[in-house]
Amino acid sequence: MNPLAATLGFDFGTESVRAVLVDLRGRELASAVAKYPHGQIVESLPGSAKKLPPHYALQHPLDWLDSAAKASCAALRQAKVKTDAIIGIGVAFTSCTMLPTKRDGTPLCLLKPFAAEPLAWPKLWKHHGAQSQADHINAVARQRDEGFLKRYGGIIGLEWFFPKMLETLEGAPRAFDAADVWLEAGDWLVWQLVGGPPESLPRSACQAGYKGMWSAADGYPSEDFLRAVNPKFARVVLDKMPGRLLAPGVAAGGLISAMAKKLGLREGIPVSAAIIDAHAGVPGAGAAESGTLVMVMGTSSCHMLNSEVERSVPGIAGVVKDGILPGFFGYETGQAAVGDAFDWLRKLTGRRDFAALGREAAALPPGAEGVMCVDWFNGCRTPLMDGSLRGAFTGLALHHHPAHLYRALLEASAFGLRWIVEMLRDGGVPVRKFVATGGLPHHNPLAVQVYADGLGENIIVHPSKQGPALGAAILGALAAGAFASPGDAIRAMATPKAGAAPVFKPNRAHRAAYDALYREYRRLGDWLSTKTGS
Amino acid sequence: MNPLAATLGFDFGTESVRAVLVDLRGRELASAVAKYPHGQIVESLPGSAKKLPPHYALQHPLDWLDSAAKASCAALRQAKVKTDAIIGIGVAFTSCTMLPTKRDGTPLCLLKPFAAEPLAWPKLWKHHGAQSQADHINAVARQRDEGFLKRYGGIIGLEWFFPKMLETLEGAPRAFDAADVWLEAGDWLVWQLVGGPPESLPRSACQAGYKGMWSAADGYPSEDFLRAVNPKFARVVLDKMPGRLLAPGVAAGGLISAMAKKLGLREGIPVSAAIIDAHAGVPGAGAAESGTLVMVMGTSSCHMLNSEVERSVPGIAGVVKDGILPGFFGYETGQAAVGDAFDWLRKLTGRRDFAALGREAAALPPGAEGVMCVDWFNGCRTPLMDGSLRGAFTGLALHHHPAHLYRALLEASAFGLRWIVEMLRDGGVPVRKFVATGGLPHHNPLAVQVYADGLGENIIVHPSKQGPALGAAILGALAAGAFASPGDAIRAMATPKAGAAPVFKPNRAHRAAYDALYREYRRLGDWLSTKTGS
Repeated sequence: MNPLAATLGFDFGTESVRAVLVDLRGRELASAVAKYPHGQIVESLPGSAKKLPPHYALQHPLDWLDSAAKASCAALRQAKVKTDAIIGIGVAFTSCTMLPTKRDGTPLCLLKPFAAEPLAWPKLWKHHGAQSQADHINAVARQRDEGFLKRYGGIIGLEWFFPKMLETLEGAPRAFDAADVWLEAGDWLVWQLVGGPPESLPRSACQAGYKGMWSAADGYPSEDFLRAVNPKFARVVLDKMPGRLLAPGVAAGGLISAMAKKLGLREGIPVSAAIIDAHAGVPGAGAAESGTLVMVMGTSSCHMLNSEVERSVPGIAGVVKDGILPGFFGYETGQAAVGDAFDWLRKLTGRRDFAALGREAAALPPGAEGVMCVDWFNGCRTPLMDGSLRGAFTGLALHHHPAHLYRALLEASAFGLRWIVEMLRDGGVPVRKFVATGGLPHHNPLAVQVYADGLGENIIVHPSKQGPALGAAILGALAAGAFASPGDAIRAMATPKAGAAPVFKPNRAHRAAYDALYREYRRLGDWLSTKTGS
Repeated sequence: MNPLAATLGFDFGTESVRAVLVDLRGRELASAVAKYPHGQIVESLPGSAKKLPPHYALQHPLDWLDSAAKASCAALRQAKVKTDAIIGIGVAFTSCTMLPTKRDGTPLCLLKPFAAEPLAWPKLWKHHGAQSQADHINAVARQRDEGFLKRYGGIIGLEWFFPKMLETLEGAPRAFDAADVWLEAGDWLVWQLVGGPPESLPRSACQAGYKGMWSAADGYPSEDFLRAVNPKFARVVLDKMPGRLLAPGVAAGGLISAMAKKLGLREGIPVSAAIIDAHAGVPGAGAAESGTLVMVMGTSSCHMLNSEVERSVPGIAGVVKDGILPGFFGYETGQAAVGDAFDWLRKLTGRRDFAALGREAAALPPGAEGVMCVDWFNGCRTPLMDGSLRGAFTGLALHHHPAHLYRALLEASAFGLRWIVEMLRDGGVPVRKFVATGGLPHHNPLAVQVYADGLGENIIVHPSKQGPALGAAILGALAAGAFASPGDAIRAMATPKAGAAPVFKPNRAHRAAYDALYREYRRLGDWLSTKTGS
């Protein structure tokens, strides 16, 4: 192994892209961030004063390329490595962020006739314009008892690929007709890097599997199903979704000359198929074996697991063969409000920061002296997959302070994860190890400790603060053939040095208390999620 | 009627006593307040460093007399009326505030051997040392199916007279044995004013009826019952509770010389039997007819009603013949946390005052954009009589601000009252009119408007800010024989002038919304109050 060889990992986020250069021993050589000039487009389209509908969140496709070039060149300058040393590229991207293009890859929104049509622009993952379309797709799928439902815990999300396509078909049929290709933004980015006709455009099995209702065994939803959804939708897969499905870590092709120049790299180096940003956190967190739950904790949380077994677990967001790494079944689950719920409570209680709140909450006993919380402040992702559910506090009395509510919220968040873990285990999917990554575990150790206590398990905090970018760099190394297996690549590039990863251990003395509190949490959750029917 | 004639009303509160001079046309001539030198005794007894147990709240009996004298003399100086013009005295007092004395009325705690015994001191209404005694009394009463239970909604409170006596019997048997007389502090005060042997000491039917398990028809609990509670308790009524039961407004006797001198009044003027402070708010609020619910709103709320009908309504705090005014059945109900819950939320959300919070909450639609609250932050008084119940917020989402919670809390408080009103009406007790009094309605008009909306009824805010003291003055006039009936006295002395009492009218457009919200409130309350059993 060439000790100087390194790979470039891109992490395309909601506001900016990060480029990180990592050598094959896992040393970070450089890291640079570039903001998207247009950021999130939520008020009005560029060059227009017309207000967008609420719940719209769009992006500008050229921002991705331009910012990636800026970040890549900055990282290369910083690292002072020879261009020759960079042997592969990996791409992590938000999802489902998606767009319509022409056959040559030109985004529809860049063409004059469609520049003023919001539904011709890339829709960001958090764009919530397709609620009615998601409802309709779910209703038809349930009525027809479609097999794909069981891979997604029984529900297709309003943020996913098909609802977003259908939204354009219904709301802007001219744009829908003019689109030759619909694809994930991460796939579009990789396609721009490696070129080629649409028939061979590299689609990630990760994005397709978790957000596009695709599976290796069954492919995309059937023409019959799509016709039942809308006759004009019947041939959308056949006519407008060309390409090859590839696992992340598999080479999508070599970097074309124009892009090599733009990014400051050598032509021809392998580019990995894309991966969803959160999912890149799995290799990025050093999770080389099956059975390790990687908790990517931030504003919301995504909890992912590679496993050798495929099980239909009710309530999970998705299980996808090769979805995260080749050779594994990748399970995705999530909690819709974590860091942003903590921040909401901080603001609600008029606190400037978490310092005193955390200190006071840490001093309280398990159960926050009677306060119980359910953490559905932005709906419940796993296992109920219901964005309309809401949070609650019970057990409140006049002697309770903000810290009581904060502690109860941390416990509720831990119990939300415990529910997910129990659900996986009850469904026959082993969960053996817990690794926390993302921004939150680094600046909120109390939350990690409460998670360890509430869960009754050790939690390792991975030291990397750029897990998804590191994960993307690992996929770049795999695409370059630098390692014999994903496990080898992860162990070499992302396993923390001894002592570098703090381990939070549960306080065994509180075990029974947390078991009882968890039962109470579940009972309150049961009532809140079913009361409208009673 | 002598246009110059006036009466003196005392309102003995938790921290101070107010004396108000009112002429027979209802004009307030003077008003003065005097603080109790010892205030609430909660840390340690006077002259001792020994810490009192938690939940203890005692008072010093001489504070009542000394402060009353100070307030009375100050009011008289202020009014510049001749002593001859004062024709009667009324006494409103917190309850159940009670004490043990010797036969001559000397409080036990003033005797050397008992000065250091906390359980020989007057126990303030809020003293919570008798929980286990209340539990035991309730258990025995339920087992024996005692008839008095149905007058109190099925539960005897831990703040009441018999649990507090039993607490001393169990905790300080020597003090219990040394006590010749147990009585309410209001009755003790009147006894001090009119003198006489213990056999004729004037006990208020109000205090005895609401807090002493007494009724005109059945008297006090039977010797058999008391023996079942504790053999040493069997003869407590016969041996230690001498006196005559009198309705408030009935003359207890004439002012004795020593007290006339102390208070600056004329010897021999009639003194009314005492009344509970909150209950004095009923005449004080101008409620001359049956069917008017007087809402005394403050830290907590007491909702009272005079009626011509006697009904056993499950859940009410008490129904007492002649309990508030002679000739009526007086119903008492209450909400345990009102103003203090509002204040708790204000502090919880880091707000300095209610100005912005109220403005923002007033701008929100009914239902606070999805937030639902149950207002049991200090337990539920009526109708569940369960101090262990706790408050809750549901429907919370990341876009909610403190004002959403505040509005939801105001609505919950209104629904708590609506539940009480529905319970009375369902039980056959007509409720025709609503009058709000106490401090809160004057400084929180938004709360009154939300009450009117949530209730779907007009609410009149009585202009007097000293309702209980005014009520006591009216009772003084009745005791003096200045009016032919309670109705005449109230109409003459407490009916607000035209336009002086603002009327809050419900917004009819929101009626259906509030009806639906109320059903949701009841459903959440049902769940919270029964979940431990499920």
